Amino acid sequence: MKDLTLICAILLVILSLKYSTVEAKIRHYRWEVKYEFKSPDCYRKLVITINGKSPGPTIRAQQGDTIVIDLKNGLLTENVAIHWHGIRQIGTPWADGTEGVTQCPVLPGDTFRYKFVVDRAGTYLYHAHYGMQREAGLYGSIQVALPDGENEPFVYDYDRSVILNDWYHRSTYEQAAGLSSVPFVWVGDPQSLLIEGRGRFNCSRTPDVASGVCNMTNPECSPYVFTVVPGKTYRLRIGSLTALAALSFEIEGHNMTVVEADGHYVEPFVVKNLYVYSGETYSVLVTANQDPTRNYWVVTKMVSRNNTTPNGFGIFNYYPNHPRRSPPTVPPSGPWWNDVDARVNQSLAIKSHRDYVHPVPQTSDRVIILLNTQNRINGSVKWSINNVSFTLPHTPYLVSLKHDLLHTFEQTPPPDVINGYEAYDINIAPPNVNATSSNSLYRLKFNTTVDIILQNANTLNVNNSETHPWHLHGHDFWVVGYGDGKFNASEDPKRYNLVNPIMKNTVPVHPYGWTALRFVADNPGVWAFHCHIESHFYMGMGVVFEEGIEKVTKLPSSIMGCGDTRRFIKP
Amino acid sequence: MKDLTLICAILLVILSLKYSTVEAKIRHYRWEVKYEFKSPDCYRKLVITINGKSPGPTIRAQQGDTIVIDLKNGLLTENVAIHWHGIRQIGTPWADGTEGVTQCPVLPGDTFRYKFVVDRAGTYLYHAHYGMQREAGLYGSIQVALPDGENEPFVYDYDRSVILNDWYHRSTYEQAAGLSSVPFVWVGDPQSLLIEGRGRFNCSRTPDVASGVCNMTNPECSPYVFTVVPGKTYRLRIGSLTALAALSFEIEGHNMTVVEADGHYVEPFVVKNLYVYSGETYSVLVTANQDPTRNYWVVTKMVSRNNTTPNGFGIFNYYPNHPRRSPPTVPPSGPWWNDVDARVNQSLAIKSHRDYVHPVPQTSDRVIILLNTQNRINGSVKWSINNVSFTLPHTPYLVSLKHDLLHTFEQTPPPDVINGYEAYDINIAPPNVNATSSNSLYRLKFNTTVDIILQNANTLNVNNSETHPWHLHGHDFWVVGYGDGKFNASEDPKRYNLVNPIMKNTVPVHPYGWTALRFVADNPGVWAFHCHIESHFYMGMGVVFEEGIEKVTKLPSSIMGCGDTRRFIKP
Repeated sequence: MKDLTLICAILLVILSLKYSTVEAKIRHYRWEVKYEFKSPDCYRKLVITINGKSPGPTIRAQQGDTIVIDLKNGLLTENVAIHWHGIRQIGTPWADGTEGVTQCPVLPGDTFRYKFVVDRAGTYLYHAHYGMQREAGLYGSIQVALPDGENEPFVYDYDRSVILNDWYHRSTYEQAAGLSSVPFVWVGDPQSLLIEGRGRFNCSRTPDVASGVCNMTNPECSPYVFTVVPGKTYRLRIGSLTALAALSFEIEGHNMTVVEADGHYVEPFVVKNLYVYSGETYSVLVTANQDPTRNYWVVTKMVSRNNTTPNGFGIFNYYPNHPRRSPPTVPPSGPWWNDVDARVNQSLAIKSHRDYVHPVPQTSDRVIILLNTQNRINGSVKWSINNVSFTLPHTPYLVSLKHDLLHTFEQTPPPDVINGYEAYDINIAPPNVNATSSNSLYRLKFNTTVDIILQNANTLNVNNSETHPWHLHGHDFWVVGYGDGKFNASEDPKRYNLVNPIMKNTVPVHPYGWTALRFVADNPGVWAFHCHIESHFYMGMGVVFEEGIEKVTKLPSSIMGCGDTRRFIKP
Repeated sequence: MKDLTLICAILLVILSLKYSTVEAKIRHYRWEVKYEFKSPDCYRKLVITINGKSPGPTIRAQQGDTIVIDLKNGLLTENVAIHWHGIRQIGTPWADGTEGVTQCPVLPGDTFRYKFVVDRAGTYLYHAHYGMQREAGLYGSIQVALPDGENEPFVYDYDRSVILNDWYHRSTYEQAAGLSSVPFVWVGDPQSLLIEGRGRFNCSRTPDVASGVCNMTNPECSPYVFTVVPGKTYRLRIGSLTALAALSFEIEGHNMTVVEADGHYVEPFVVKNLYVYSGETYSVLVTANQDPTRNYWVVTKMVSRNNTTPNGFGIFNYYPNHPRRSPPTVPPSGPWWNDVDARVNQSLAIKSHRDYVHPVPQTSDRVIILLNTQNRINGSVKWSINNVSFTLPHTPYLVSLKHDLLHTFEQTPPPDVINGYEAYDINIAPPNVNATSSNSLYRLKFNTTVDIILQNANTLNVNNSETHPWHLHGHDFWVVGYGDGKFNASEDPKRYNLVNPIMKNTVPVHPYGWTALRFVADNPGVWAFHCHIESHFYMGMGVVFEEGIEKVTKLPSSIMGCGDTRRFIKP
């Protein structure tokens, strides 16, 4: 009888395993990217669409599912690559979609298959990772649900995704050409802010209204409407894919409870304004508990830089009021752009949910201090990390390293700390000596624990330090500390949060401050780590990590065909 | 003694062979293409430059030289390919630079080597042959001189090249997206005409003058100056690479003697206005024999379409007058845009120079009648040839045919004559039935003689037929006849000029007319033949010929890497 029970138990386990195997679905998408004229903020311009849309289709999957995307490049002369932001690509480093790091770009007319497992529930993003194409509109949302029978540590009635973005009227070509020009031409402030692909540029500001290029009656730029039923609670998944702007987001008269960040459960806390940096995602809960006879403003605002970009507006629409009915109030003006403390405080408030703490290693094997500085190199303005301004190689590192094409990038690794770090004054413009451009990378010992200190500093302008959201590919990291001023390597680590730090894939370093991260180099592959501001990465603000390259299995030939991998073309 | 004479003669032949072998030089160029802001007509926009210039560097070589161009693609996300217009690529069909036909495009960061022999003296061109990049400024001149000791059948003191072009302010992306849109958005008239890369847009017509985007004091758009010494004779090599415009070209008060067309000597004739179609080159002789105390206008004007494009102006500057001194006269207004007869008459006037006649085969083995019609296919406006609107495959034909990847394009060849040709009325808008898109090609029997009849017709608009300059890659053809109305296959060939027809690589078909060409399919390879109007080719106005593919030697792997040739990537 005891044996029978055991047999039954084993059978049940086998059945349940089989059950979950059956459950993991393959979700197959066929996408075609194209240039099309769109007017997301009432101003008509060329946008890169996926199957006719920008933002592209939302990927909805369940934890453990395999996603297959057959991406057809329908552009005329331009290549493409898409990154699955927040998906760690465990076992599939070649599917990370980072041109120059994990793959060659996809040529016009070609179809590239991305195939990877979404191994953890949460809110993620996808976007172009080639040139500055993300800014051209090539982005979207990924929602990964828990397995059947598992529950989130919070409850809600409905689930919605919204991507915040900033928007430029000039083409990404023009922006990039300006950034590469001598003299340097800065991209400037965005013309508008988009909420789920909808903004509103004031056409009376432009002569293009006469030609019809700017048209405020275009339905494509009618405001984003978030319709709610009184009394219900909504999970709102907010992601930012701004090219430049740090944002605040608020819903007039409603509190938001932060419950998820970058796919990890947060010990809940309440905010009126949520600050969101490019590359971050949050889930907030909002209950429709205000006067239901009216609508409310949804407001997003550019912060951290003094700017000319008008706030972006949407409508929080209480059913059954008309969704286009304007709220009777003046929209909230949002927080002061320069309120650094409020933003730092939000960063500090984000801790792991008590029931979902991933234990953090108590020590690390290596500390890399990444000091960011603005520099001039050959007359161009660049961003440098430890005096090295990053450039992408034209042969993807993943292939170079696996196939011993080591001549394709510089072999001297960048420094773990800048020479003369102790004496470096982060409060003044950089002395600007010895900054160079390089495509070298950091090689991490497999399975070691690495601390990264993002150290902010003054830009080339007096009394100016900016917020930089850094995004790590292939991993989540624990955010073990934030600090003001210059990191003190002997004292500051003593105050690290090694109890309940949140895990994230994107984190800001605040003006004149530092942010300390810890991660385990346990994902064989080559992974970019960079400022998620499109122009900053373009200007060199990034690094690349290699780990366990010898454990990477046979690379698919689909990622090859550019740079030195052309030697593999053998007809 | 007789033997000794023979030996001496043989030795002399050997020595002279050796001498000419030594003479044939290898001319090596290193080019990098980039996007840069330029103001060729005072309006700042992104231009594709070669080594910082548009037009790019002039290639100057001698007959028999080998040209080596290492073309580095310095664009951010966009591929590139360059065609050597007028160079037949005998033995090097893979160097023709036609994306989709003879090569895969060159990726950003990659360097592609074009290597070919310039086997005949004359005036040629080069330009992008990918998407609509030619219009973005990627073009230049090729001058091939006679071997030492040989002379042209005309004399001159100095030699100058000038490329005529039309210029748009919108990007080629926007133009292409409009042409692919439903509803169709036509590119419209060019904003200006450029003489050797210099035009002059009237900035007062645009609101962009306030922002500095349009600036008439920019030295980049100072007029083209052709400085001459009184009494001297100039060979002016004129090429057109317009995207759309048929042009007339004149020098106020000066006659021009036409002496060369597309690399062939013309029986000289005198013109006041020279008509030049996109893809054509002419050499004219101009003698500075007018009042030397003043300057004269150089004028180019858009003809054949009713248009809003202002004439382009340059200055014919008599030394030592100041080159910026305006002529004291009102510039000539040029010929009437709709004077078809004048244009047809010029076409008829162009015959082979009597001492340089290439004997034309008196019969042909195959006649292909290419009727062009405008059609609507799936809501888009297209051009069709015999009801087939041409699309480029993504795997270059040259590789597909040589390596048996025949599934990469449609195998049913397009028809030699449209079904129902006899009944087709070229004077009305096309009935628009059965037009399809296809990437199929014509296969020509090697070494056969082929007649091509370009048959023009009414467009989709009532009472409208346009001029189309057709360009053949890999060959020159004899222009054996022009005619009004519909080609009569039994009568018209009797009136072919089989005595002294000119050989050309580009020829117009006039409104409601036909043009008959003859060529020998003796150049192993795959060759495009298409309307040289950029938007027309994009809309399907082209065909492709294969001949002697079995004689093509091993293809370089450098032309592969896209489409189905990716199967050759074997790491």
